[in-house]
Amino acid sequence: MPRYIPPLRDMKFVLHEMLEVEKHLAKLPQHADIDAATIDSVLEEGGRFCAEVLFPLNQVGDREGCTYHGDGVVTTPTGFKDAYRQFVEAGWPSLGADPEYGGQGLPHVVHSAFMEMMNSANQAWSMYPGLSHGAYNALKAFGTPEQKSVYLPKLVSGHWTGTMCLTEAHCGTDLGLLRTRAEPQSDGSYAITGTKIFISAGEHDLAENIVHLVLARLPDAPAGTKGISLFIVPKFLPDGHGGIGARNRVKCGSIEHKMGIHGNATCVMNFDQAKGWMVGAPNKGLNAMFVMMNSARLGVGMQSLGLAEFAYQNSLAYAKERLQSRSLSGPKYKDKPADPIIVHPDVRRMLLTQKAYVEAARAFTYWAGLAIDREHKHPDEAVRKDNADLVALLTPVVKGFITDNGYESTTLAMQVLGGHGYITEHGLEQCVRDARINMIYEGTNTIQALDLLGRKVLGDMGAKLMKFGKVIQDLVKSHAGDPAMKEFTDPLAALATEVQALTAEIGQKAMKNPDEVGAAAVPYLRIIGHLVFSFAWCYAAGVAMKKLDSGDPFYKAKITTARFYFAKLYPETAGLIRQVRAGAAPLMELEEALF
Amino acid sequence: MPRYIPPLRDMKFVLHEMLEVEKHLAKLPQHADIDAATIDSVLEEGGRFCAEVLFPLNQVGDREGCTYHGDGVVTTPTGFKDAYRQFVEAGWPSLGADPEYGGQGLPHVVHSAFMEMMNSANQAWSMYPGLSHGAYNALKAFGTPEQKSVYLPKLVSGHWTGTMCLTEAHCGTDLGLLRTRAEPQSDGSYAITGTKIFISAGEHDLAENIVHLVLARLPDAPAGTKGISLFIVPKFLPDGHGGIGARNRVKCGSIEHKMGIHGNATCVMNFDQAKGWMVGAPNKGLNAMFVMMNSARLGVGMQSLGLAEFAYQNSLAYAKERLQSRSLSGPKYKDKPADPIIVHPDVRRMLLTQKAYVEAARAFTYWAGLAIDREHKHPDEAVRKDNADLVALLTPVVKGFITDNGYESTTLAMQVLGGHGYITEHGLEQCVRDARINMIYEGTNTIQALDLLGRKVLGDMGAKLMKFGKVIQDLVKSHAGDPAMKEFTDPLAALATEVQALTAEIGQKAMKNPDEVGAAAVPYLRIIGHLVFSFAWCYAAGVAMKKLDSGDPFYKAKITTARFYFAKLYPETAGLIRQVRAGAAPLMELEEALF
Repeated sequence: MPRYIPPLRDMKFVLHEMLEVEKHLAKLPQHADIDAATIDSVLEEGGRFCAEVLFPLNQVGDREGCTYHGDGVVTTPTGFKDAYRQFVEAGWPSLGADPEYGGQGLPHVVHSAFMEMMNSANQAWSMYPGLSHGAYNALKAFGTPEQKSVYLPKLVSGHWTGTMCLTEAHCGTDLGLLRTRAEPQSDGSYAITGTKIFISAGEHDLAENIVHLVLARLPDAPAGTKGISLFIVPKFLPDGHGGIGARNRVKCGSIEHKMGIHGNATCVMNFDQAKGWMVGAPNKGLNAMFVMMNSARLGVGMQSLGLAEFAYQNSLAYAKERLQSRSLSGPKYKDKPADPIIVHPDVRRMLLTQKAYVEAARAFTYWAGLAIDREHKHPDEAVRKDNADLVALLTPVVKGFITDNGYESTTLAMQVLGGHGYITEHGLEQCVRDARINMIYEGTNTIQALDLLGRKVLGDMGAKLMKFGKVIQDLVKSHAGDPAMKEFTDPLAALATEVQALTAEIGQKAMKNPDEVGAAAVPYLRIIGHLVFSFAWCYAAGVAMKKLDSGDPFYKAKITTARFYFAKLYPETAGLIRQVRAGAAPLMELEEALF
Repeated sequence: MPRYIPPLRDMKFVLHEMLEVEKHLAKLPQHADIDAATIDSVLEEGGRFCAEVLFPLNQVGDREGCTYHGDGVVTTPTGFKDAYRQFVEAGWPSLGADPEYGGQGLPHVVHSAFMEMMNSANQAWSMYPGLSHGAYNALKAFGTPEQKSVYLPKLVSGHWTGTMCLTEAHCGTDLGLLRTRAEPQSDGSYAITGTKIFISAGEHDLAENIVHLVLARLPDAPAGTKGISLFIVPKFLPDGHGGIGARNRVKCGSIEHKMGIHGNATCVMNFDQAKGWMVGAPNKGLNAMFVMMNSARLGVGMQSLGLAEFAYQNSLAYAKERLQSRSLSGPKYKDKPADPIIVHPDVRRMLLTQKAYVEAARAFTYWAGLAIDREHKHPDEAVRKDNADLVALLTPVVKGFITDNGYESTTLAMQVLGGHGYITEHGLEQCVRDARINMIYEGTNTIQALDLLGRKVLGDMGAKLMKFGKVIQDLVKSHAGDPAMKEFTDPLAALATEVQALTAEIGQKAMKNPDEVGAAAVPYLRIIGHLVFSFAWCYAAGVAMKKLDSGDPFYKAKITTARFYFAKLYPETAGLIRQVRAGAAPLMELEEALF
């Protein structure tokens, strides 16, 4: 049976020892009072809820899936509803939300850590409150004061949940093609008509109301992406007194059968003259939706971090327990009929790959979480701007790199278990199936790569990338006098230099042929991912190095894992750089008919 | 809905234009008469059977799975039994079998091509006859004349099916630990007692009898792998007149719930004093089983080739039909609301990766199929030996490299479809789930890598590898005067040289520390895989180059795909070589307790 233990030691290492969040949060007026003890107790209590309430429902959710009963009714798997009730009663939905709307106002970085644990325990379940949080973000940024006062407290308390209704059957990536219409009504509302697909958490039995944020076109809207507006369309109309009134004309038509995340209902949603209200300005819907989507993209990286942590724990436990064959360098456990498989170098490769990816992803995503806090709440505008740039630059890397690594990690975890990994009861094959969606939704990883290279890097002539380059330089410089750190700072600095040259090359080629951007994007994102992870491992090793004398073996393990990362994972960049340099021609040469 | 069209054009290219099988088979007395037309008609008819009978059952099989009814009874999904009846009536089980036992005696290379199509159409179904063929091979090699006369005609006709019963709950890779006992009886038979798990096709309703080949220990057997014997244990005892008699004491206890291949029953088999007969010599069971396993390993490579071909076809069709966004270099289909996604460079990367892997895998596996024919049937002993060496060397590469690539290919195919790829009805997520087992069973890919590097390469001081090196050299030399071929022969020759040096380095390190072999094995297998694929693409390009003037665009596509391979996939070797050179220390340094 699978197990999950919240990895509090490493979470605290990242938060307190690497990021020193207390020190940074002290500079943000909203969070000036929070201390390490408060953060730790949130993590400990949150971890307990995830491990004890959500985790036991993970396999049940996969096995049963959601059920469509006809006439728009969807029920979630056994136990999901009760867990959601406990979640709401304990106040967890409000953790990261603004106190103005009933939130607890905890920093984003702490909320991120809680999200990691929720996803380790049960990604399908966690998507319900996850989408609510996205809807909360978009309404908070673009809603009218009235919309905010009606919807935000309900989303914050968790009594209502949210969705994002973007995709239609003929358009996902290219939202400019969407057809759902919004006709203005005399009372200031709109009648929304159209069909949306792939709507996660679109219908369920967890909450009394569901707030859909829907992209649609006004009658006179220009074609393409510049003619899309955002609407709020609740399942039940608010009654004006904090309760729900009439049923709106939006209904779930069916739910999808899919590879994983069975416990989350993926719905076809039919809007038939449903009542809605515009959010933000007409034809500016995509802007508003991007607020939601950027937060969702970071959230997706967090989902894969969570799954990879779970997979690592379980494959590690198996590798220590399973006795099979002897070490090639002679028996290690002579008293046992065979050695535990963790003695074998290749099993260690599979475990260390997971460990190195998981721990770097944790450092990276928490760092991004803190940057978001600083972006929004730091009193100094220059600091806000720097952090906003770093977050914008690295959001596609969080999403693309961590979800690709998450799939690889969970696949390796299965492999450690051999045939047992393929069997459902061990929980790892579900983990792979769940992890697979993260590479697709909220913008496929190709879209992330185009966003990174085209918009974030080349779009401002490398200015944001240089900002990150400066962060790297500062770290390298801070260890300049330390020979023990050279094995980590040298490859980091080398890759940073390499990236600079490579980016300039792509930029020049792209001026002649825009397909060069599309051709380079995916391997380029992976190179930047390795640059970030090199940074994270160098950073972690530097912190651990100073504490080696403490006697706590945790620090020794950190340094050894950093060493593994640079020896065995970092070298992937050599091939990636050659792929990028090969350019667009080898991709574009073959005529369509000859594929 | 998914589709499958047998890729006859490329299959014929490999068989007739690359391998010139007719010419080679003419030298083997048993196949001297076979001509290209006969081969083609087998492929065409076989392809029709796969596409029309097996393929429509692929999704049904996944959805329904097998059912355990208690008391040892297992039924297969709707339609499986009828398809098997048609398969037997049409004589397909006997295709590659010896005429002495009722087989049609077709060459292995032709049988291989048929297997590819069966697996494209329905891997789970194809495993039932696939395992029979493995049992046939082992009995043919090691059975007594009487055993052969009783069992082989039944396996060849398909009226009985076969299994391999190796794994037990506590041992898979390390068969030395197995506990199933065989007690000699006064009538010369043995009473077999024990429990086997993960027995594919262990119980079903397709055939009137199931012939289990079971590994067990004699009472006085030495411990470990040198005390294992092989037994034949039929579900029903033969009645001595070609029919079945009493029910034997072997029964299916349950079937597994697993990630994929739902249509194939993965059984727990309980042997309770079941009647069996020894096959081969006492305590030499593993030798006999390896005959079966080597053929099974090539078969597993063929499974992933089949799945990858299916996935490529379906993602290609989608990429041509799906309209989404405009080409970055300007609209390509102005009359349509958007361009088909095949215009985008990264979609092409995903398609070409699949195409390059599939076509190289086809060339490689058919080449191995022909080598097996030459190994067993060539009149010249030296030729037999050379081919045996090449087959031994490359069997783990077929299994390991093609199944890893198959998983990557099917994963990419899903990605081309975006969200639709995650939905079951499109058939690609099933394809990924099915492909995943191929990296695990018949020896995990780690075991393949250890077999390659430890036994096949270092085990004979590189003699077999040098034989393959000679094959490569000959190809490079044959194009020495041709500047148009330089872009292909140069990287092939460079990698061959690199491999030579790298192998020597590993060999020297391994003398000091055997863990160096385990540490290098998996990336080393991938490097050798690329060496083989570089060879295959160079070979294919050379053949196509000569026919460019024919006007058939097929040859142009071959050359362009070869160019893509060397530009975008081959560079992976740069990172792999660095990983190998990093050695064992980064894997072995971390103490077990600190993971």
